[in-house]
Amino acid sequence: MDPTRSPLARPFPDMPAIEGVTLRIARARYKDWDRADLTYVELAEGTSVAGVFTRSACPSTEVEMGREQVRAGAARALVVNAGNANAFTGHRGREAVEQIMAQVAAHLDCDPRQVFVSSTGVIGVPLPKDKARAGISAVVAAPPCSWEDAANTIATTDTFAKGATASAMVGAKRVELSAIVKGSGMIAPDMATMLGYIFTDAAIAPEFLQQLLSASNVQTFSCITVDSDTSTSDTVLAFATGKAGNTPLTSFEDVGADAFAAALHDVCRQLAHLVVRDGEGARKFIEIRVTGAASDDSAHTIGLSIANSPLVKTAIAGEDANWGRVVMAVGKAGEPADRDRLSIGFGGTWAAREGQPLADYDEAPVAAHLKGSEITVDVDLGIGSGKAVVWTCDLTHGYIDINADYRS
Amino acid sequence: MDPTRSPLARPFPDMPAIEGVTLRIARARYKDWDRADLTYVELAEGTSVAGVFTRSACPSTEVEMGREQVRAGAARALVVNAGNANAFTGHRGREAVEQIMAQVAAHLDCDPRQVFVSSTGVIGVPLPKDKARAGISAVVAAPPCSWEDAANTIATTDTFAKGATASAMVGAKRVELSAIVKGSGMIAPDMATMLGYIFTDAAIAPEFLQQLLSASNVQTFSCITVDSDTSTSDTVLAFATGKAGNTPLTSFEDVGADAFAAALHDVCRQLAHLVVRDGEGARKFIEIRVTGAASDDSAHTIGLSIANSPLVKTAIAGEDANWGRVVMAVGKAGEPADRDRLSIGFGGTWAAREGQPLADYDEAPVAAHLKGSEITVDVDLGIGSGKAVVWTCDLTHGYIDINADYRS
Repeated sequence: MDPTRSPLARPFPDMPAIEGVTLRIARARYKDWDRADLTYVELAEGTSVAGVFTRSACPSTEVEMGREQVRAGAARALVVNAGNANAFTGHRGREAVEQIMAQVAAHLDCDPRQVFVSSTGVIGVPLPKDKARAGISAVVAAPPCSWEDAANTIATTDTFAKGATASAMVGAKRVELSAIVKGSGMIAPDMATMLGYIFTDAAIAPEFLQQLLSASNVQTFSCITVDSDTSTSDTVLAFATGKAGNTPLTSFEDVGADAFAAALHDVCRQLAHLVVRDGEGARKFIEIRVTGAASDDSAHTIGLSIANSPLVKTAIAGEDANWGRVVMAVGKAGEPADRDRLSIGFGGTWAAREGQPLADYDEAPVAAHLKGSEITVDVDLGIGSGKAVVWTCDLTHGYIDINADYRS
Repeated sequence: MDPTRSPLARPFPDMPAIEGVTLRIARARYKDWDRADLTYVELAEGTSVAGVFTRSACPSTEVEMGREQVRAGAARALVVNAGNANAFTGHRGREAVEQIMAQVAAHLDCDPRQVFVSSTGVIGVPLPKDKARAGISAVVAAPPCSWEDAANTIATTDTFAKGATASAMVGAKRVELSAIVKGSGMIAPDMATMLGYIFTDAAIAPEFLQQLLSASNVQTFSCITVDSDTSTSDTVLAFATGKAGNTPLTSFEDVGADAFAAALHDVCRQLAHLVVRDGEGARKFIEIRVTGAASDDSAHTIGLSIANSPLVKTAIAGEDANWGRVVMAVGKAGEPADRDRLSIGFGGTWAAREGQPLADYDEAPVAAHLKGSEITVDVDLGIGSGKAVVWTCDLTHGYIDINADYRS
């Protein structure tokens, strides 16, 4: 973990254990470092799984295999390797993943396809099979660990451990969700860019879990961006052990389905925000609210154009209410816009309405808002009813420091 | 001009005067600064004009009007205001432009629509009409100035004056092209993002000049990016006075048309490269050569995805041969790609072939190459014959310094 904790960090929450989920960590020493870097999660028999993955055309082996594996809907274990993304490593990378799946499957006496593997870190270096083998042998024998230990172990350039929790009443049963996530760079949609794992004791059919996770993804992980770059390894998996004993959820017709969906959405949103809060070099958390667009999709595209603009992000880093750069980012989005209907504000104060600076614009409240660490940017296109919210962070010297010297 | 001259700067070339073109500069004091910021170019009667403009959906008034004006094909004057982009300024911005056009037209006794106006600088502040009026009065009476003076006067955050020249034989007549450009940030295609002005004494029909300029734009200005941001004001205008006395060029059937087209293309390429060489904070000029793509358009999109990736640009700033980040940028481009056919190299040395690190990869020549200031990145998709070349610069602390504190 980077010693420089993000100023936007949140304390790790008090998260309940999930029945049927056991966390363990070990040191595989995938890099020359003295920290746990291998996470192993054992899941009870009967666990449902769903997943969403990067849309990169060059994904990692783990992503390719994970996409296949979630179709069967059943999981018994999760392995997360930190320090090596095992992406762009050809057949040698695939062999390493298959070895891990086989080794864990032998230990649990399960189908290897129920063993999910993620890897995160440097691209292009095959995951060392000897280290993986020794690491798995060690981790399955390790004592159970806490959520925070696991959150720290899946982390790479993260500066703080990230967890989120929620609960819901499904009929008479209370179900719990506990989740961890890592990610601080290469964060951009399609989808979120990170490794996220959500565990619940709810009983839910894998198809319905997939439906809910995919829907939440669209409004959470797909709405965050740190640097517009999309990882080859982005993965969010949801595991449901069924140990809460509720009547299994299979559709929105079922009692408690809405409540569970809301809790899952809440956890996804929390995780997505935490990733932005650890954006490399971030000093400010930025919420961009787009209204009045031609459609929701158009609003989303415009929001991301603003959120990915280096000029907007550096202006906010400099606490400069440079709404002209927001105009520029709207203009370049390639979506319907009318310069003379466009309104832009910061922190609830309009700076420009309908294409012109406000005659009585008082920059003082805007300047005060921009000095804070939680920034809102409002953009109204004035041409329709489409809307979207996206989240990003500012672009600072810290980003350059971290990324101009990452591999070494 | 920024006192910190780009390390990638080129000396201002020795550029010939163009008959029928007279340059003058003055101090309109659009900002509180002590420098010339108003450029006035008088053009001989009968001058043809062509132009290419930003694709921003929220362009400046100057761009909207310029698009209209070039359709008539005739020009008598160019006015460039530096320090204020006059973009997103509503009717007040338009009035300022119309005032300038009328004032110059009265001086020259010409149609106001033959007076072209560009403005560059801060967005959202109407161009002050009183300063413009006094400035125009002063500039039309100013003595003629040099190309370098004009290049300095159209500049804003540029760190060096930029000019380019070429010549061609059209039949028995030698025609000259001299050009100036400004731009160092908000540089991204659709189209280039900058103000560029090309002057030639060739006789050429405006329709054919437009055809040639548009074609060159696709392979030059549209292939450069500094920060992925597209200005609201990007403009390149070409003016042809006809004073060389060649038989007017009207199509590629005419003798010398190919030679003139090549010279125009050369000037456009030079100007485009100069803009990248002054990319804000740039320390390295990067040429990205994409081959083996599904199509030329696909190669272009992939090239720009790489060129716009903050992670690739910071890696090169750090002199790190992190080809994994190039894989990432290929993957996120949304174009056809096959991870297992992809090859990536730096400075002519392949680091990875067909989806895997080279077994005998020797990083030494690549490391040496990356220590230089002229970087090449080769990407072969291995799936087709599409190709493209794009140019960008690295992303450094200098970019943050400049852009987190631009308005103040």
